[in-house]
Amino acid sequence: MNILVVGTVAYDAVETPEGHRAKQLGGSASYFATAASYFTETGIVSVVGRDFEKPDRDLLTSRGIDLSGVQVADGDTFRWSGQYKDDLNNAVTLQTQLNVLQSFSPKLGPKHTSAPYLFLANIDPRLQHAVLNSMSARPALVACDTMNLWINTARDGLLSLLPRVDAMLINEGEAKQLTAERQLPKAAATLLDTGLKTLIVKRGEYGAALFNRDFGFAMPAYPLTRVVDPTGAGDSFAGGFMGYMAAVGNTSEEATRRAVVAGSVMASFTVEAFGLDRLAFLTANEINLRFRAFENLMRFHPLGGGQGLPLMVG
Amino acid sequence: MNILVVGTVAYDAVETPEGHRAKQLGGSASYFATAASYFTETGIVSVVGRDFEKPDRDLLTSRGIDLSGVQVADGDTFRWSGQYKDDLNNAVTLQTQLNVLQSFSPKLGPKHTSAPYLFLANIDPRLQHAVLNSMSARPALVACDTMNLWINTARDGLLSLLPRVDAMLINEGEAKQLTAERQLPKAAATLLDTGLKTLIVKRGEYGAALFNRDFGFAMPAYPLTRVVDPTGAGDSFAGGFMGYMAAVGNTSEEATRRAVVAGSVMASFTVEAFGLDRLAFLTANEINLRFRAFENLMRFHPLGGGQGLPLMVG
Repeated sequence: MNILVVGTVAYDAVETPEGHRAKQLGGSASYFATAASYFTETGIVSVVGRDFEKPDRDLLTSRGIDLSGVQVADGDTFRWSGQYKDDLNNAVTLQTQLNVLQSFSPKLGPKHTSAPYLFLANIDPRLQHAVLNSMSARPALVACDTMNLWINTARDGLLSLLPRVDAMLINEGEAKQLTAERQLPKAAATLLDTGLKTLIVKRGEYGAALFNRDFGFAMPAYPLTRVVDPTGAGDSFAGGFMGYMAAVGNTSEEATRRAVVAGSVMASFTVEAFGLDRLAFLTANEINLRFRAFENLMRFHPLGGGQGLPLMVG
Repeated sequence: MNILVVGTVAYDAVETPEGHRAKQLGGSASYFATAASYFTETGIVSVVGRDFEKPDRDLLTSRGIDLSGVQVADGDTFRWSGQYKDDLNNAVTLQTQLNVLQSFSPKLGPKHTSAPYLFLANIDPRLQHAVLNSMSARPALVACDTMNLWINTARDGLLSLLPRVDAMLINEGEAKQLTAERQLPKAAATLLDTGLKTLIVKRGEYGAALFNRDFGFAMPAYPLTRVVDPTGAGDSFAGGFMGYMAAVGNTSEEATRRAVVAGSVMASFTVEAFGLDRLAFLTANEINLRFRAFENLMRFHPLGGGQGLPLMVG
């Protein structure tokens, strides 16, 4: 197992301007692992209930995802229901039923604790710390996500996690909320000052940005004329990012820049259909074409060495 | 005169989280022409009142801007007062005093009507049509801007302008309002269907995007940790865009992509200070460095020919 993700497996009820689904496989770990599975061996540590259905398990295993760390507990699988109205960047949560997640305690076996790439998806910071503590060696790369709930209720635990990870991947609203800063670059500077090495910000239809002490990277989103279901886009981004990093096996600036593009590629597929309907059924050709589409979207001729723009001033 | 802009010269009262100014030189034509003046000979057609002060006129002429088309009318100069709160992307207009603008009728002399580059800034679409009609020959490049007022009150005149121009530069909210579409790429497709050749969308802190039938281009904004005054950013963008296009003298895809970056460069300077305090005092070195900063912000290694990402799928 090259990448381990600790997060949720859920049943979602989703309503968007394009339609609705009463029950679809979701959760941070499902989206993350599906995206990462195109790049490298990925395993999930999570919990589901007795109601978890075989076709959903089969969908994940069909992508080669290792589910040996997914406990089956008495009770129902975590359920989330949400709605997207005019602003597809922000879901309105209608209901959350924690169910088996309420007493979730991650159980890691040897193949989990030895994973060189670790993604601590959006769960209680205490569990994120516990998982990191249980690793047999410091992974080559640890990244985490979080959400407004933990920013509000577990702020200290979250802040003490930041110096322990290599990167935090959160959305723009969370970055601003966590720092009480209005401008993203200011929020990023504040977070880097707390000891965070790299901040990667998911901006939905506005793309993604990376901030660290050595360089910055920013990119637009893929211009889709039809967004069907934004659910899971952020976790798919994280899966593409970590998947690419794990597949190339180095943490250079060049790899990191490309990994942000890979994350954007995977997120762009997720939102084209409900749930995992598109993300779980991609070909290498589709992924490579979308990566090249980003190259084409963002390219412009750089100034040559010593050359400047055609200016009339000295 | 290589570029002519027809638009407003104004006195603005501005309040932002960084401070306030009771009266500063503003208006679409002032910002546009100042930005464009770094690239090529630029002239303004507009109107001011008897209260227009010499230091403000001197500031524009110090940038080499031709003010022979700026009428001085009885009455006061157009005044706008606005406020930026948490959302620096959107100004709240507190007051608008049209003053001499109320009876503005653009007067163009031979050097104006022969300008090969024409920017129809945010004014009544009837005036935009009239200016375009008065040109002695179809300019090499005509672009226009607009605002919510004209979308609401002069929609037909605006829509009939679109097939007559080469590009429309508007902000994201205006593009969505004009088309009643929620997603920008959908709004862009709708506008291109009306006969518009190129849509360039200014997204404030989220950058800029270009849509036409042949290619798309999108880029993030420069990550400024301190935005002092967003006023004029959009017009500075347009000035940088048109300035670059006029300076290189061709309308190729490559020139157009670079022009969008040049627009973003000029807009990024404008917001660093109140009014024209930064935009009017730049060196070539500063402009070139900022352009290179965008190169560095957006660059990543493309896939080589025939090569793909390190994927595990066929």
